[in-house]
Amino acid sequence: MNTQFPAERILLGPGPSPVSSRVLRALAAPTLGHLDPQYIAILDETCEMLRQVFQTKNQLTFPVSGTGMAGMECVAVNLIEPGDEVIACVNGVFGGRMKDVMERCGATVHTIELVWGDVFSHEQISAALEQHPKTKLVGIVHAETSTGAHQPLEGLANLVRARDALLVVDAVTSLGGHELRVDEWKIDAIYSGTQKCLSCPPGLAPVSFGERALAKMDARKSKPQSWYLDVSLLRKYYNGAGGGGRVYHHTAPVNMTYALREALAIVLEEGLDNRIARHARMHQRLRVGLDAMGLSYVPKHSLHTLNCINIPAGADDAIVRKRLLDEYGIEIGGGLGVMAGKAWRIGLMGHGSTVRNVDLVLAALREILR
Amino acid sequence: MNTQFPAERILLGPGPSPVSSRVLRALAAPTLGHLDPQYIAILDETCEMLRQVFQTKNQLTFPVSGTGMAGMECVAVNLIEPGDEVIACVNGVFGGRMKDVMERCGATVHTIELVWGDVFSHEQISAALEQHPKTKLVGIVHAETSTGAHQPLEGLANLVRARDALLVVDAVTSLGGHELRVDEWKIDAIYSGTQKCLSCPPGLAPVSFGERALAKMDARKSKPQSWYLDVSLLRKYYNGAGGGGRVYHHTAPVNMTYALREALAIVLEEGLDNRIARHARMHQRLRVGLDAMGLSYVPKHSLHTLNCINIPAGADDAIVRKRLLDEYGIEIGGGLGVMAGKAWRIGLMGHGSTVRNVDLVLAALREILR
Repeated sequence: MNTQFPAERILLGPGPSPVSSRVLRALAAPTLGHLDPQYIAILDETCEMLRQVFQTKNQLTFPVSGTGMAGMECVAVNLIEPGDEVIACVNGVFGGRMKDVMERCGATVHTIELVWGDVFSHEQISAALEQHPKTKLVGIVHAETSTGAHQPLEGLANLVRARDALLVVDAVTSLGGHELRVDEWKIDAIYSGTQKCLSCPPGLAPVSFGERALAKMDARKSKPQSWYLDVSLLRKYYNGAGGGGRVYHHTAPVNMTYALREALAIVLEEGLDNRIARHARMHQRLRVGLDAMGLSYVPKHSLHTLNCINIPAGADDAIVRKRLLDEYGIEIGGGLGVMAGKAWRIGLMGHGSTVRNVDLVLAALREILR
Repeated sequence: MNTQFPAERILLGPGPSPVSSRVLRALAAPTLGHLDPQYIAILDETCEMLRQVFQTKNQLTFPVSGTGMAGMECVAVNLIEPGDEVIACVNGVFGGRMKDVMERCGATVHTIELVWGDVFSHEQISAALEQHPKTKLVGIVHAETSTGAHQPLEGLANLVRARDALLVVDAVTSLGGHELRVDEWKIDAIYSGTQKCLSCPPGLAPVSFGERALAKMDARKSKPQSWYLDVSLLRKYYNGAGGGGRVYHHTAPVNMTYALREALAIVLEEGLDNRIARHARMHQRLRVGLDAMGLSYVPKHSLHTLNCINIPAGADDAIVRKRLLDEYGIEIGGGLGVMAGKAWRIGLMGHGSTVRNVDLVLAALREILR
């Protein structure tokens, strides 16, 4: 195997998504110091563009120096203190991970569990809040990458705020590909990844914290268990420490920030609404083609960014995916967790969500499955 | 300020160090999926080269998906359980951080504190171990980036092992620039960063765990408090889960791995011994020049990779560094912690440790300080 020159795959799995040459070029710009005024200006631009893509005015919006799961952990360790009660909505792998991460923070985690692929109703969340009146926060996954289910979020915050709890959202597979209005939907804390609908390489986790979340953090009795992800320290670097100064915390991933800035610039050049509409159209195009082949979706309410379909009877999961990769250069994802061997996951994210890619993957699947 | 095209600085601060065009080119290669067989092969090569640079046979040697401080946290959360007693050797900022990180893991941290710039003797560490016989691990900084002090490590493990404790080493500013023999020196767990003597952009933290550390982790009664850094999960991806398979944990920072592999290839092409000797020569060359200008070092026992010098009377810290950056394109570091305003830190790391750079920074300082 030639490992010197990575192949040019068509990345239609659950992420990473295809990265445009513009973003790759930005990634390779000369490395600056993390306290260089020029780098600070680049970082500030990046955070401002992140606010636009999150549709928020939250000052504390920045890329965590880790992948999407570090974003989840950042939100959890800062908002949870040992003994807190929280609710985790579990309808797939990532809801389950949220439970695990929150338990490791010392929380008592109450779960609402659904059949994988289903989404939560307001009534279910209301009932859980009524049952657990001391709940500090409710964690829910907007785009469940393991099942392809698309969780509606509008109106949810009102239920959560009525109980003085925080709404925490996993938007790893929706940011930049699905409608997501952090301020309008009153989301208190949210995290995502760069390698999905933003089409930047993996390595950063955009997060945003609202005023209610900050108030809870400021009222903490104990330090967050993670120094690396401690927002009270990080904000002195990302938001400044007064007088324009920045307090060193850790050495920021400079080149990844260049790439993220370029990826966000591309999102905003296209226009967020146009981009979201494109993801909807490409999903529809794929869906029509899959329907015609008799392939069915796992979730009732599918994401546009990730298409989780049942593996048809008679098809060999591993062989089909290997042929797609080896013969067509196309990566799709296998099933995750209880879906392993039962589902395929076709991602149409960011730079990868195009007519060409939809038609290519359909053509290749038709060839292989016929 | 033009933020579109980052300036080409000469990075002679405490890191990031200058990144060669080879590494930048590797960084910009097409993104592969993190479970693609080609990417797994690249990752395996990277880990194998890391073993060579760490001079270890430790199977569990891999780059943590975060910056150097994530490496420190990874080692701490996996080796420490709440209530454990540990010793942290504090003679600068990074020893102090080790204490903070370990306390957040629930450890009772006993510290040995020295004047900044000094290094620890075997006697001091022996005495601390005698005083705290339940010590589970001793954490010490090989290359204290805040003071430039070079801590000798040889023979230390014997003292620590005699008490059945683990030796944990911070090698962020030494790996690839100073002699560092993980197996020969019986270091049980070690972490570093990519942006120092490896001259790769910041974003990954190479770590290595020996058998004794693994045994302690396997004997844990509780899960590590961090899911993101939980080695019992990570090793199923980095080392495989039997049968050649890899278990998805998080989406690895694919492009950063390309860059690290290229950076490590450059280290091994030069030869580790040659590279270490080059760092020693460049340090000596700088030192002679600084001496001639009447500039003195903070530590008695200086690193070759980082030169921490006292700011001469009459020089304005901020103005000198701003002039170096604006007029000469040279970044050096200011003082950190108690050294702020009192010291400059001149890094000669990896790709940046060259005759040209030594002579340039000396010439520029002579101009500015005359």
